[in-house]
Amino acid sequence: MQITPPYLMFLGDVPDQLAAKTAQGIVDWRPEWCVGQIRLPGCKADLRLPDMSIADAAAQGVKTLIVGVANAGGVLPDHWTDVIVAALNAGMDVASGLHTRLGSKPAIAETAARTGRSLFDVRHTDQSFATGKGHKRPGLRLLTVGTDCSVGKKYTALALEKDMRARGLDADFRATGQTGVFISGRGVAIDAVVADFISGAVEWISPDAAPTHWDLIEGQGSLYHPSFAGVSLGLLHGAQPDAVVICHEPTRTTMRGVKTPLPSIAEVIDLTLRCGRLTNPAIRAVGISVNTQALDEAAARTLLADLSTAHGLPATDPIRFGVASIVDRLLLEFPLPATVGA
Amino acid sequence: MQITPPYLMFLGDVPDQLAAKTAQGIVDWRPEWCVGQIRLPGCKADLRLPDMSIADAAAQGVKTLIVGVANAGGVLPDHWTDVIVAALNAGMDVASGLHTRLGSKPAIAETAARTGRSLFDVRHTDQSFATGKGHKRPGLRLLTVGTDCSVGKKYTALALEKDMRARGLDADFRATGQTGVFISGRGVAIDAVVADFISGAVEWISPDAAPTHWDLIEGQGSLYHPSFAGVSLGLLHGAQPDAVVICHEPTRTTMRGVKTPLPSIAEVIDLTLRCGRLTNPAIRAVGISVNTQALDEAAARTLLADLSTAHGLPATDPIRFGVASIVDRLLLEFPLPATVGA
Repeated sequence: MQITPPYLMFLGDVPDQLAAKTAQGIVDWRPEWCVGQIRLPGCKADLRLPDMSIADAAAQGVKTLIVGVANAGGVLPDHWTDVIVAALNAGMDVASGLHTRLGSKPAIAETAARTGRSLFDVRHTDQSFATGKGHKRPGLRLLTVGTDCSVGKKYTALALEKDMRARGLDADFRATGQTGVFISGRGVAIDAVVADFISGAVEWISPDAAPTHWDLIEGQGSLYHPSFAGVSLGLLHGAQPDAVVICHEPTRTTMRGVKTPLPSIAEVIDLTLRCGRLTNPAIRAVGISVNTQALDEAAARTLLADLSTAHGLPATDPIRFGVASIVDRLLLEFPLPATVGA
Repeated sequence: MQITPPYLMFLGDVPDQLAAKTAQGIVDWRPEWCVGQIRLPGCKADLRLPDMSIADAAAQGVKTLIVGVANAGGVLPDHWTDVIVAALNAGMDVASGLHTRLGSKPAIAETAARTGRSLFDVRHTDQSFATGKGHKRPGLRLLTVGTDCSVGKKYTALALEKDMRARGLDADFRATGQTGVFISGRGVAIDAVVADFISGAVEWISPDAAPTHWDLIEGQGSLYHPSFAGVSLGLLHGAQPDAVVICHEPTRTTMRGVKTPLPSIAEVIDLTLRCGRLTNPAIRAVGISVNTQALDEAAARTLLADLSTAHGLPATDPIRFGVASIVDRLLLEFPLPATVGA
C-alpha cells in the first residue's frame, strides 16, 4: 500500500471534531502533505485547512483524496459517493479508513476501473505476506511498546522520527495502524492481517535497510492485554527491535475494554526483553514515554523523575517535554559513525 | 462451523498416501463417522474403507462429503467438481480443507444454493468473532502447548479425550486447526482468523461449560516460534487453561521452517505459565508428551524417565505408552466430586 501525497482531506458531514480524529492526526504530523479540505453541508469538523473543490485541489496537484473520518459503524454513506467519484475522475487516488470498502459502491468501483486510479482501504489488507523468517535484518529498529492499548505508541514513534530527523539522522516512522498508514503513506494495519502472517507482515513493513538507518516502528496493544497480546507478540518478533520505548498512561487501573489490571512498567520491560530476545538477542529498553495529560506540570515532573530513577531510563511526556532525552540515550547506546548525523 | 457426520471421504486422484494425511487422521480418530471412501481413477491413496458411490453413501445416511486431501498448492481440480456436485444433489453438505474455496467453482456454488446444502472451507473463516474478553469462564480447560510446530499437540489432546472418556469423564476435544475441525465436526482454524480476534475466537471455540467439564484444546505453534508465536499467545490467553501439557520432539535442533534453535522444555513451561497467568492465575503444567518415534524403546523409556525426574511431571509418548499417567496427574491436581467419573 503506497498512498501518494499531497492529500485533499474529505470530511463528509460528520457531526463533530472527534469524528475527524484520524484526519487531524494526518494534519498534525504531515501538514506539508495536506493541501485542503472538502466538506459537505452540515459538517461540524474543521481541520483549519483551505476549503476547496475537487477541481481546485486537482489544479494544485493533489494526488489522493483521504477519507479520514470515523462514522458510527464505519459505513460509507451513499451521499458521499459523488465527491469520491469526482476525485477519481479528476485523476486522484482515494484512500479510506472506513470499514465499508470503497469498491463496494458500484459507482466508485466502476469509476476507479475506468480511470485506472487506485482505491486504498486502510482497515483491510488483501495483500499476501510470507510467514515471518525470524533472521536478523540489516538496519536499526526501535519499537514502541505499551502497558496498554491507546497509550501513545504512535505519537511517541512519530515524535522520535521528528526529533531524529531534525538532528540529521536517517529515520523513518513505520506504520502498523490505520492513522499511521495515512501519515506515512505506507504500511499495514497489522491487526487486520491473518494471524499466521503477523510477524511476516512486520518483516515486510520494516525491510532490510542501511546499517545506520533507524526504523521507528509503531507498536500495537500490549503483551499484557488479554484481547490483543498475540498481535503485540507477533509484532515484537517481526520488528526484531534493537531498542524499545515503553509507553504508559499513569491514571489507568484496568486495561482498555477489559477488567484485567494494568501491568507495571517493570513487568512490561521484563517480558518484552525476554520475548524480544528470540529474534534480537541484543534488544534493550532506551526510554519511557508517559501521557501525563491528567496531571499538572509539577506532578508530571515528579512522576517522570521517579520513573527515570526506578528504571534507570529517561522518562518523558513527548507532548509536554519532547523526546530529546530518549534520542540522547539512543545515540549513547547505539553510537553512529562520526560521518552520520549532526 | 458445524460439520455433520457420518462422512464419506473423497480422495480425488491424489498421487500418494501422504496426500490423504488429513483424511487418515479423521479415520484414525473417528472411525465410527467414516462410512466409506470415494476415489477417482488413478488415486493412489487408500483409507481401507469400503469404496462406494454417492448414491450408496446417501442410502447409508451419509450427511457430509469430506475433501480431506492435500494437493500441490491446495487447489481444487476441475475434474473433481462432478463428485462434489453429485454429493450436493444427493442431499449432503461438503467440507474441504483445500485452499481453493468450494464456492469458487460456479457449478458447486449454484448447486449448493439450489439444494440449500452447506459448503465448509475449513482453511478459511468468514465468521465474525468478538475480541477476547479475558474473564474466566466456568468449566475446566487443558491446552497442549509445544516446543515447536508439528510436535503432537493435536494427537495429545485427542489421546487425552479418548482416555478421559474411557474413564467416564466429561471431556471434549476442541479443534483449532484444519484436521482437528474435521475430527470434531466443529472449531476454527485459528491461524486463519484476523489477528485482532485470535483470543476472541478461542473463547468462542471453548465456551462456558459445567464446572466438572474438561475442554481439551488443541494448541498451535510455539511461544518460541518466530513466525507463529503471536497465534500461540492469543490462543493461550483465549483458552485460559487450568492445565497445560508440553509437547516435544527430542531430535529437532531448530524450529520448523526457520533457523531459530529449539527452546528447552523448561523454558516453554516457564514462559507458558508466566503468560498464561494473565487470564488464569491458577494455570499449571500437568505433563510432558514426547514424540519418541526416532528412538528405540529403551532409549525412549530412558528419555521419558529423565524428563519426568527433571520436571517433576509425568512424561510419556502418547502413541507408544498412552496418556494414562497424565490423566492420573490431572485428576490428582483437579479432583472431581465422587459422583463424577469412574
